[in-house]
Amino acid sequence: MPAAFPALDLSADAVALTQAICDVPSESGDERALADLIVDALAAYPHLEVIRDGDCVVARTNLGRAQRVAIAGHIDTVPINDNVPTRFEDHDGERYLWGRGTADMKAGVAVQLKLAAELAEPVYDLTWMWYDHEETSQELNGLGRLARNRPDLFEADFAILGEPSNARIEGGCNGTIRFELRAYGVRAHSARGWVGDNAIHKLGPALARLAAFEAETIDVDGLAYRECLNAVGVSGGVAGNVIPDEVMLHVNYRFAPSRTSGEAIERMRALFPEYELTVVDRSDGARPGLDAPFAQEFVAIVGGDPAPKYGWTDVARFSALGVPAVNFGPGDPLKAHADDERVSVDQIHSTERALRAWLTGAA
Amino acid sequence: MPAAFPALDLSADAVALTQAICDVPSESGDERALADLIVDALAAYPHLEVIRDGDCVVARTNLGRAQRVAIAGHIDTVPINDNVPTRFEDHDGERYLWGRGTADMKAGVAVQLKLAAELAEPVYDLTWMWYDHEETSQELNGLGRLARNRPDLFEADFAILGEPSNARIEGGCNGTIRFELRAYGVRAHSARGWVGDNAIHKLGPALARLAAFEAETIDVDGLAYRECLNAVGVSGGVAGNVIPDEVMLHVNYRFAPSRTSGEAIERMRALFPEYELTVVDRSDGARPGLDAPFAQEFVAIVGGDPAPKYGWTDVARFSALGVPAVNFGPGDPLKAHADDERVSVDQIHSTERALRAWLTGAA
Repeated sequence: MPAAFPALDLSADAVALTQAICDVPSESGDERALADLIVDALAAYPHLEVIRDGDCVVARTNLGRAQRVAIAGHIDTVPINDNVPTRFEDHDGERYLWGRGTADMKAGVAVQLKLAAELAEPVYDLTWMWYDHEETSQELNGLGRLARNRPDLFEADFAILGEPSNARIEGGCNGTIRFELRAYGVRAHSARGWVGDNAIHKLGPALARLAAFEAETIDVDGLAYRECLNAVGVSGGVAGNVIPDEVMLHVNYRFAPSRTSGEAIERMRALFPEYELTVVDRSDGARPGLDAPFAQEFVAIVGGDPAPKYGWTDVARFSALGVPAVNFGPGDPLKAHADDERVSVDQIHSTERALRAWLTGAA
Repeated sequence: MPAAFPALDLSADAVALTQAICDVPSESGDERALADLIVDALAAYPHLEVIRDGDCVVARTNLGRAQRVAIAGHIDTVPINDNVPTRFEDHDGERYLWGRGTADMKAGVAVQLKLAAELAEPVYDLTWMWYDHEETSQELNGLGRLARNRPDLFEADFAILGEPSNARIEGGCNGTIRFELRAYGVRAHSARGWVGDNAIHKLGPALARLAAFEAETIDVDGLAYRECLNAVGVSGGVAGNVIPDEVMLHVNYRFAPSRTSGEAIERMRALFPEYELTVVDRSDGARPGLDAPFAQEFVAIVGGDPAPKYGWTDVARFSALGVPAVNFGPGDPLKAHADDERVSVDQIHSTERALRAWLTGAA
């Protein structure tokens, strides 16, 4: 029998709810207990249709509103490292909840759960999604599985992912491709190098091109996405006395969401025409969609200037299904996965207030 | 008790003697049985003073000649791989003795042993050296140990090493240095590459310089030594999403014996001033000394044009002690260490004839 945890009280303060769900361990692959508690707690709210797919829980309203917003968060965490159960700490006069999952991203999930229960009459129809296996391989990702099993659930005009963003809007994300460039030569003893053909020497032009590359900054839906192109690895060589016949340069290109990964690949083939190019990894970016009028209301409520997200996140899954998406959640992303992971209590409350104001039309 | 091998007959044909010593296994570190047989056989020749150092055997004449020639060969082999005992084979109408050690270099040793026994009145005083541990690390090399223990035994005007050279003279050898060039940067997430400083990109100029490098060909004592400069390895990278903070390029410079390894290192420091340079390996080359008149007689007897030796061999030990040295022995160097190692019977005889003619003044 698994340990019995107390039932979740979705009417509690969001900070107390954060603490309650952080104290239910849910490392990737072990989310069942928490998913069960969520399903049980949602049963009390008849305005929500609840759908379960593995340890992914979807709850949605069906009010016939003109627009639908999807709001999602993952319920798994990276491994606990002596940082559960949670506790409160003060740093520089600010109150924090400390422990695994507080920032990444159970505080965001707690705010979402509380609002899902509370908002029986939101101004937009809402699709809430809490999913498993985000902190592990792409193949296991619960949001990816749901998109394959139930793409119909992703029908929405806008999406919010509750990943920690310091309670600021971070819009969309850059795409990323990783590829290997290879050059070839002919082996020979290095005492008679002229008999061979040195593959490593052929990398010079590629490195010169990378060093000189002027990455663009591209405006997409009102946010400026800065691209970058970098070698992330290089390897070659047979032995200290052998002219090498092969060299490999591993390159990462982060590109604005206005390009598809296919376009990014073609751009790299054109930049490095004399090398063999093998794509090892590709992910499209995500447009932020912040130019839509109803999204502008959300931006106005949160305040401040939305920033582009440079790292790849699950917002890209929504974008791939045609739904613009942003990150918006409590917690400092630099504390995600850290042993001193923690979340600001103020950010939990400010995130909750902003979402409530927007979803109830109270702004 | 070790296996008992028949005593060596130094008056036998050099091919029969080659076969006899090849059939006494003597992988590096296991040369004792063969060294014992050599010492026992030499005892029958009173014109030779015999000195033993471990499994290295020295035999020399003391006739008061104006010049002394040192002639050396190693008695160890790389590991046997089902290729002992030896046998005769014919290829393209030529007769070969097949098996481990035939080319590298027991045929050369057999010719030397036969002539050491036979030549009681050579025109030059002779110092014959048969040594252990050539096919293993530099620290164990028997000729190196002898040079440390008995440098006086290396007093000579010229030296011949019997390494396989297809019965042609290969003079001296190039020197070699290996060094690592390093560039450094600052790590960062590759989604925000502009925060870091990419170390791999900094290798471009070094590779461009290597590709453009015009290696010299330098005349030394009448032989043309072709230099070469090559990258032999490259490595760098932390992970597919991290800007690398270090890169290492491994470079090998083979330089003419007119330069010291110290001069070669300074040359490389001047060529790559912006990189951290770490020397990992250095060996001076060896001058061939073929411009000396009495060496010219040897060249005339062997016939053909002497060639420079590009690979580093033990001739460099003589050169380091001020004795110019050449390689001259039966066998194709490309068959050394090969599983089908073999030596041409004709080359055994032609090597023997040339050395006898020169050492007896019969040319």
